[in-house]
Amino acid sequence: MALIRPFLFGLAGAALVATGALAQDINPAVKARQSHMTLYGHNLGLLGGMARGNIDYDAEAATAAAANLAALAALDQSRYWPEGTDSDTLMETRALPAIWENIPDVIEKSRTLAAATGTLATEAGGGLDALRASLGPVGEACGACHEDYRVPND
Amino acid sequence: MALIRPFLFGLAGAALVATGALAQDINPAVKARQSHMTLYGHNLGLLGGMARGNIDYDAEAATAAAANLAALAALDQSRYWPEGTDSDTLMETRALPAIWENIPDVIEKSRTLAAATGTLATEAGGGLDALRASLGPVGEACGACHEDYRVPND
Repeated sequence: MALIRPFLFGLAGAALVATGALAQDINPAVKARQSHMTLYGHNLGLLGGMARGNIDYDAEAATAAAANLAALAALDQSRYWPEGTDSDTLMETRALPAIWENIPDVIEKSRTLAAATGTLATEAGGGLDALRASLGPVGEACGACHEDYRVPND
Repeated sequence: MALIRPFLFGLAGAALVATGALAQDINPAVKARQSHMTLYGHNLGLLGGMARGNIDYDAEAATAAAANLAALAALDQSRYWPEGTDSDTLMETRALPAIWENIPDVIEKSRTLAAATGTLATEAGGGLDALRASLGPVGEACGACHEDYRVPND
């Protein structure tokens, strides 16, 4: 972290400052993966709103959000998960230690998500029914990983 | 926001919970763009560390991080910048009102960044000198936007 922080603040990380002192106490890998999840949520929020009829369907906006999801799912995420960043070790994460005991399964689940977002990216602009049909498997892929590898909500 | 939050928490946003109550008070568009910046920083941190000799150069890791940057820079970011999310209006952002008065220039600068990260993605695996040469323009592109459109550090 000592190696990374000066560069972050010099070049690209000043946005961190704006989020206050608390953010600086979060493990940087945890912060990166939570940021990645936030960007999933940013795009899923629009698509889910359209699917539920709370937001007017817009083919161009749906395509853009779905393409974002596919691009995010395809990012190399290997540096998000250093040893010692599980929920037994750090307060600021819900990532269960089971992740590190089941890496092949985690990778398989991430591939399922990548495939589902790829389909969504090609389908989301084809009308509300196509969006709904292809969004379902994305939600299932999210849920499959959360169910096994995230501290439950309750 | 009322439309988006339920979906976020149901499907993909539970990571937000782990970051505490403060995070929920941040405007969701601001949170999304700050998350995007965090992911730039996550990848730039590795590449900058290699460029400075603080982290051993690794062609595969450099290529992966550079490809991440290029993919991030290519994301559709139009929904990050709703009116009324500037630094005069919201506490949690350093995004100057000048952004909304100079949209064509902001877009032009974002294209410069996208081009620079594209070059970096093809060059970063070609040795430390190639990494250094192609990382410079990325840093300049970051800085050009921050200089004009972000609340200064001091």
